[in-house]
Amino acid sequence: MVQYKSPKREYEFILREVLDFEEQIKGYEGFEEATWETIEMIADQFSTLSEEVWLSSNRDGDVIGAKFENGNVSLPPSMKRAAEAAINSGLTSLFGHQKYGGMEFPTPISVFSDEVSCSSNMSLGIYMGLTKGAYHCINNHGSEDLKETYLPEFLAGRWFGTMCLTEAHCGTDLGLIRTKAEPDGDDKYVINGEKIFISAGEHDLAENIIHLVLARLPNAPKGVKGISLFLVPKFLVNDDKSLGERNGVKCMSIEEKMGVHGSATCVLNFENATGYLIGEPHKGLSAMFSMMNHERISVGLQGLGISEISYQNGLAYAKDRLQGRDLKGPKNPDEEADPLIVHPDVRRMLLRSKALIDAGRMLSCWTALAIDKSDKDPDEKIRRENNDLVELMTPIIKSLLTDFGVEISYDMLQIHGGHGYIKEFGMEQFSRDVRIAPIWEGANGIQALDLAGRKMPKNMGRLLRRFFHPVLAFIDKNKEDSNMKEFIIPFEKALKGLQKTTLFMAQKGSSNPYEIGAGATDYLKQFGIVSMGYMWLLMLEVAFSKKDEDDYYQHKIITGRFFFERILPETLFRAISISSGSKTIMSMPDEGFNSVSKFSGTL
Amino acid sequence: MVQYKSPKREYEFILREVLDFEEQIKGYEGFEEATWETIEMIADQFSTLSEEVWLSSNRDGDVIGAKFENGNVSLPPSMKRAAEAAINSGLTSLFGHQKYGGMEFPTPISVFSDEVSCSSNMSLGIYMGLTKGAYHCINNHGSEDLKETYLPEFLAGRWFGTMCLTEAHCGTDLGLIRTKAEPDGDDKYVINGEKIFISAGEHDLAENIIHLVLARLPNAPKGVKGISLFLVPKFLVNDDKSLGERNGVKCMSIEEKMGVHGSATCVLNFENATGYLIGEPHKGLSAMFSMMNHERISVGLQGLGISEISYQNGLAYAKDRLQGRDLKGPKNPDEEADPLIVHPDVRRMLLRSKALIDAGRMLSCWTALAIDKSDKDPDEKIRRENNDLVELMTPIIKSLLTDFGVEISYDMLQIHGGHGYIKEFGMEQFSRDVRIAPIWEGANGIQALDLAGRKMPKNMGRLLRRFFHPVLAFIDKNKEDSNMKEFIIPFEKALKGLQKTTLFMAQKGSSNPYEIGAGATDYLKQFGIVSMGYMWLLMLEVAFSKKDEDDYYQHKIITGRFFFERILPETLFRAISISSGSKTIMSMPDEGFNSVSKFSGTL
Repeated sequence: MVQYKSPKREYEFILREVLDFEEQIKGYEGFEEATWETIEMIADQFSTLSEEVWLSSNRDGDVIGAKFENGNVSLPPSMKRAAEAAINSGLTSLFGHQKYGGMEFPTPISVFSDEVSCSSNMSLGIYMGLTKGAYHCINNHGSEDLKETYLPEFLAGRWFGTMCLTEAHCGTDLGLIRTKAEPDGDDKYVINGEKIFISAGEHDLAENIIHLVLARLPNAPKGVKGISLFLVPKFLVNDDKSLGERNGVKCMSIEEKMGVHGSATCVLNFENATGYLIGEPHKGLSAMFSMMNHERISVGLQGLGISEISYQNGLAYAKDRLQGRDLKGPKNPDEEADPLIVHPDVRRMLLRSKALIDAGRMLSCWTALAIDKSDKDPDEKIRRENNDLVELMTPIIKSLLTDFGVEISYDMLQIHGGHGYIKEFGMEQFSRDVRIAPIWEGANGIQALDLAGRKMPKNMGRLLRRFFHPVLAFIDKNKEDSNMKEFIIPFEKALKGLQKTTLFMAQKGSSNPYEIGAGATDYLKQFGIVSMGYMWLLMLEVAFSKKDEDDYYQHKIITGRFFFERILPETLFRAISISSGSKTIMSMPDEGFNSVSKFSGTL
Repeated sequence: MVQYKSPKREYEFILREVLDFEEQIKGYEGFEEATWETIEMIADQFSTLSEEVWLSSNRDGDVIGAKFENGNVSLPPSMKRAAEAAINSGLTSLFGHQKYGGMEFPTPISVFSDEVSCSSNMSLGIYMGLTKGAYHCINNHGSEDLKETYLPEFLAGRWFGTMCLTEAHCGTDLGLIRTKAEPDGDDKYVINGEKIFISAGEHDLAENIIHLVLARLPNAPKGVKGISLFLVPKFLVNDDKSLGERNGVKCMSIEEKMGVHGSATCVLNFENATGYLIGEPHKGLSAMFSMMNHERISVGLQGLGISEISYQNGLAYAKDRLQGRDLKGPKNPDEEADPLIVHPDVRRMLLRSKALIDAGRMLSCWTALAIDKSDKDPDEKIRRENNDLVELMTPIIKSLLTDFGVEISYDMLQIHGGHGYIKEFGMEQFSRDVRIAPIWEGANGIQALDLAGRKMPKNMGRLLRRFFHPVLAFIDKNKEDSNMKEFIIPFEKALKGLQKTTLFMAQKGSSNPYEIGAGATDYLKQFGIVSMGYMWLLMLEVAFSKKDEDDYYQHKIITGRFFFERILPETLFRAISISSGSKTIMSMPDEGFNSVSKFSGTL
């Protein structure tokens, strides 16, 4: 019953009209073929794939899910067909380098394909996303030999990847890892240990599965500085690249989860498995985290993808379902009721969702463009500045878009009333699926600490300037513009609030780290909403310049206006909350948190 | 793995120390036996029942759930045993009148039993809650004959009740109901039609099921003024109260839902079923809604119950799980990591939950006491004033506590990281179960309209005065108090904000109902949080007066302080949002909401 159309025009608006993206990447090596014409062609192809093939397997993924038997994991036939169709369409080679058989398309196009994939089948998107992550990691840190052996297979969609970090006793705190690696002559190592929560750890979508495994070498330093990274294939690879014998890695069980049932979450046992070192000994964590920006933005896009499909279905229901009357009298006098969309509170939920989705998409594309600039611009200064911006925006995109994904799927379910709670309507699956996104790849609380505790103070606030400088320049340029004034006035106030909070956190936090911890989540929300405000300013500037050409731009202006009237003011609340500091939070003794379960006479 | 202890001391604090509840109900007819000693005894009994029996059947309810076969619904054996144990403990007779065999305990004690029931097994609590609703409805509107036949059986736990409102084409908009009732001599009617989403519509927990059914008599006026209410038993009842033949009501199927799998949600087909009129013809809706205050508060308590058990488990995990280090250096140097609770952001989530739970519980008890006063006080003016207050607070309790239930179960799952997403840990069940509460018994958007569109303007704001007058008196009395000043200053500001918003809504709304609709949800949030602030003032006054007696009161003060520093300021944001009015929301044409799915060249 779920419906979905990929929001192609929205990407066209952002990439071409707002970001002037073709001009921005002009001359970048490897992007020669990424003309808008090609992009439209590819986007059409992926859209059809998502709308027609991926979406129709999404419910099977939920209802049948991944099945475990005797160490093997099988997926529903419709998901297997959808994966094959994706490989045939080139989805798995979109992002890769040409020398390994990739299309090497600009990162904003990956934003599009990630969003669309996760809208239509988030579980399936996870397999693809992890493979992309493994690709980047090996490409950045692996030997030439490893690259040549593995990367082309990833792009061809024959082999998939995983990231094996978590163990039963450690998730966030990877310093506690116990999995062991011992040298075994030449370039080989023997890996022993158990990993949990390994997404895509075992399945029948690919011929081989390539695990990237964090482990400790003998006599490694304690903590995070003693962790190394290894490539451990499910099947060993012969010199001629044919598959050899089964390696010592086995799936022991899969988890029963709240959602993403089509994504197998495995307990993996490594027993004398053969592994290959990626990068230098003891530097595994930084190798793994070097691709974390990509990965975290991808998780943000899981939130965006679920937001968009939830929104489309909430909107469709609001237009179709006849219930109640317009507060000013019947809109639909021939029917026994008016559609839900006549109700201001329903429109409020829809507009809020739309305003957040548009801004989240714009923020992702803007940051994705900065990724490409940081990677490909000939000017070292531009590369560094853009890298700073990416570092700064990554935790924001990850947290903000996943939190809003949860909220939007909630609101769109709510529009459905009781029908939203019934499996048949598909809305509740979105709420369950998206719930993992605020948790994995660094829980959102960790993202907030990353922003407030690391990115903010880094190099005396250098990263911050990459955001504040262009924003202030934009304000200066446009503040007298008769169209933009309406938005710039509240925005400037919100921006000043953010600057004030930043100063407060920086000053207090330098002497008391609890201040950083206590304010971090509110700070990320405040910063995130202000960034979305800037995204809206960029979009509105274009929309006003074309508003007489097409109603499309008028609708953008209304959506943007909603943002400034009803979403941006939350930053004020966040600022007040932060200003209360850490004192109260830290003053509660641990036992003081308890709900007391005995009457006072019997204590 | 889930743990739970009923928060008895928290009720003692609220009922005895803050509300002085024994004094307040002194002399009320029927409450003679409700001494604190008896209450403690009963509360101990229900607590043991919940902690030991109900909780252990909660997972079966989720995993096995209600099973449908050939028109019958069966529940897991452990749930059946838990229901029997509840009946034996007197849970089903707690609220009922003595003349029908009830204990006739004051309503705040029902708040306790509702909370504890829904913490330990929300699905099972639903069966009990519906029976309570049916009891009140028949008691208020049924003939003596119906009362004497049915009410004692409800209280004895032999027969259970349902409310049959929804049909496939109408949920919120009950004016559209099509089920028919035709007179059939004497006091009987023949009922024909189909109802959907009927909780507890069929099951094997009770000997008989008594359906309260909304239907239309021949030639009934159109819309809500033509709906009558009928009692339709599953088994007809003989004159000697033994069960007679099966009535013409049949369960056709049950829904697959996101959660509360142990609560059977039925499609019921009425085919020439025998029914008995409750109340007057065409006045069924007001009869059904006369018990809506009770029902809606009970749904709020579903939110509160899930909040509390989620909180207890989030807290336990935060204390047990070793992960990462205190930002100021190891707290637990002998272990390889510190417990999660050292982290300010984890403490923030816990304190926020606790501050909301304490205030929500207090708000429920305060309103429950007003229910008893409105019902039993000899002074008509006091009865009316308290009834006004109950009318005003009902939509707030329903919405606020269910929304916060969703949020708190979310945050407590989040503390668990990946483990929260795994079924085994039980946290994700809370999130799924509580998700129905913002929907049923009037979706939260409808509650907001009830508050802003009906309760607020009613009798020139008479209901509002029942809240504002005591609050202003409290401020006057305590504003110079050296302990209370810290809280009264921000509270007074928030209260003024609420008064201003109220005036804004009343003025704008009188000429343009869209203004009410557009602001309603924000207004309910603003009003709700201000009410919670008042609840905290009442609790803090007591806590300060006893702060040297026991650490318990010190912990209350810290929790209260968190509320004023970090929760109350949200009202500011809500006020700004409301002040933007309905113009932008209503200016978007319906087609402007669409995500555009074609490139501009191909539009």
